[in-house]
Amino acid sequence: MKTAKVNFTDSYIELAHGAGGKASRRLIEGLLVPYMTGDKPAELNDAAYVEANGSRLAFTADSFVVNPLVFPGGSIGELAVNGTINDLAMGGAKPLALVTTLIIEAGLATSELEREVAAIAKAAQRVGVPVVGGDTKVVEHGKADGLYITTAGIGLTDPRVSLSSRNVQPGDHVILSGAIGDHGITVLLARGELDLEADLTSDTRAVWPFVSALIEAAAPGLRWLRDPTRGGVATALNELARDAQVAVILDEEALPVRPAVRGACEILGLDPLHIANEGQFLAVISPEYADIALKTLRSMPGGENAKRIGEIQAEPKKAVLARSQYGGTRLIDMLIGDPLPRIC
Amino acid sequence: MKTAKVNFTDSYIELAHGAGGKASRRLIEGLLVPYMTGDKPAELNDAAYVEANGSRLAFTADSFVVNPLVFPGGSIGELAVNGTINDLAMGGAKPLALVTTLIIEAGLATSELEREVAAIAKAAQRVGVPVVGGDTKVVEHGKADGLYITTAGIGLTDPRVSLSSRNVQPGDHVILSGAIGDHGITVLLARGELDLEADLTSDTRAVWPFVSALIEAAAPGLRWLRDPTRGGVATALNELARDAQVAVILDEEALPVRPAVRGACEILGLDPLHIANEGQFLAVISPEYADIALKTLRSMPGGENAKRIGEIQAEPKKAVLARSQYGGTRLIDMLIGDPLPRIC
Repeated sequence: MKTAKVNFTDSYIELAHGAGGKASRRLIEGLLVPYMTGDKPAELNDAAYVEANGSRLAFTADSFVVNPLVFPGGSIGELAVNGTINDLAMGGAKPLALVTTLIIEAGLATSELEREVAAIAKAAQRVGVPVVGGDTKVVEHGKADGLYITTAGIGLTDPRVSLSSRNVQPGDHVILSGAIGDHGITVLLARGELDLEADLTSDTRAVWPFVSALIEAAAPGLRWLRDPTRGGVATALNELARDAQVAVILDEEALPVRPAVRGACEILGLDPLHIANEGQFLAVISPEYADIALKTLRSMPGGENAKRIGEIQAEPKKAVLARSQYGGTRLIDMLIGDPLPRIC
Repeated sequence: MKTAKVNFTDSYIELAHGAGGKASRRLIEGLLVPYMTGDKPAELNDAAYVEANGSRLAFTADSFVVNPLVFPGGSIGELAVNGTINDLAMGGAKPLALVTTLIIEAGLATSELEREVAAIAKAAQRVGVPVVGGDTKVVEHGKADGLYITTAGIGLTDPRVSLSSRNVQPGDHVILSGAIGDHGITVLLARGELDLEADLTSDTRAVWPFVSALIEAAAPGLRWLRDPTRGGVATALNELARDAQVAVILDEEALPVRPAVRGACEILGLDPLHIANEGQFLAVISPEYADIALKTLRSMPGGENAKRIGEIQAEPKKAVLARSQYGGTRLIDMLIGDPLPRIC
């Protein structure tokens, strides 16, 4: 066995290590990747690629531990399907099949389980992807939190697209599919721990139809896709800036944020750019295909709020900057800590 | 959406629903399958088949919640890799790639996590299968039990074999790869709750090398494969008898059971046929290939204890019977209840 070069000195695992921000990155890059890849510096994507008999498959799995199980606009079962479909879509892959596994806390009402099984089936049928298998484990009362779901997915990549941070170049445009922060703030408020209310629903949805349309309309210009879930848009773009050794310059005013999300974030001291989304994606597109890509997205139901939110520049490398209309510039960092645990 | 014909009336989910026996079967067939397949009576296999560009892939995922995390002969990380490799092998598929997801309880020592990450990497390297991706979630202290691991796997089926209970015919031989009950009894004793000790280790291992050799030696005769995990050999064979509408007649004396397992089972009132295994498999093989299959297994390191344990008969349909040397016959039922929770 290869020797793993571990670079992770925290003594205990804390919630922040699962938040998708800096601590997650340290855990993954410092402990997990060295063992799994034996130091080979791997590009961490939402879905991995596997060659099988000449076909390039995308393969992914995600665990879902969202609390509460049900929230305005969705529930854990729907999230578990959409999240995995979206990871495949971010790999430019048409979803082929899903497998779901359940970890159930003993004492869960069958009605709650049935509601989530129905949600899984409905979400899968909506994108026409079969759930072909599964596994069910039950743990003692007090050893889980109702229900955890893991969904694995395989998809078939489209040979017309090559998606990688390595393809990203200065001058490329950054497009965002819609308003940000809806999911994270919705789940946070659904916990009822804050004296805050807002007319807001999760954005959970499968984005494959949008990606499929983008491939048809702008495949040669598609450089990189990412769904900004845990850690939000800020973390996803910081990872891009670092991996591609470029700067991402955001137009602060162009960022689509609903007033309810902006208001909740102001009260809570959070930045909408750090809030998780479950039905949006970022696309980096070459300048000559940016207009047709944006037009394509905006012509689709649910894509009306797609926007060009920034561009790629050569310098300052590995940084994400947001420019305001007054000419000010602020540095956008990755998420640090875990202000919103168990959001997905 | 299709309407699901649910046939599951238990009000709450209990440990037995995850034990792999009758209650699991009722939950899966009564609630899960109706939603996922819309009533299409599905054969429930360890791995599902997915067509991709003309290739037949096997696709599976399993969650592991074993308690304790470490036991003589293995640990959760090794189990999570071997179990998924074995599910692919039972589908006649050469494993291509794995993805692992972790649900970590906040407060887990990094040293414990690192031990399991190393175990995952080592087990995967042992069978030459890459871990190509993953996901990490952290839940609050008290919302899990240290660590739960889900492993998804894809494999490429061998076109020379067609494995299905539908292929099983009267006269076929039933072969078992080695001694049974080691894993379940080892984990049970590792909990230290019983005043029992035994010199026993888990049998966790990847059985793909054995299956690969069987395919080379006896592909035309291979009818059905199954790894008797939760619910044990008795449950796996009862499922076969039911699905294939045949009788499985076991030779009680031929069953390989170590004295330590037999002793513990006698004290605890358990049947070794109901105890989980994590490194054994059952094969139904046509008579003309049974000898070469057995010879092949026995010639391999770790396969020395492979045995012919019984045969398929036409009647009594849907039953598993064990014959003793004294001429007595007993009916072997599926596992009922959950005498050994969280064994995998």
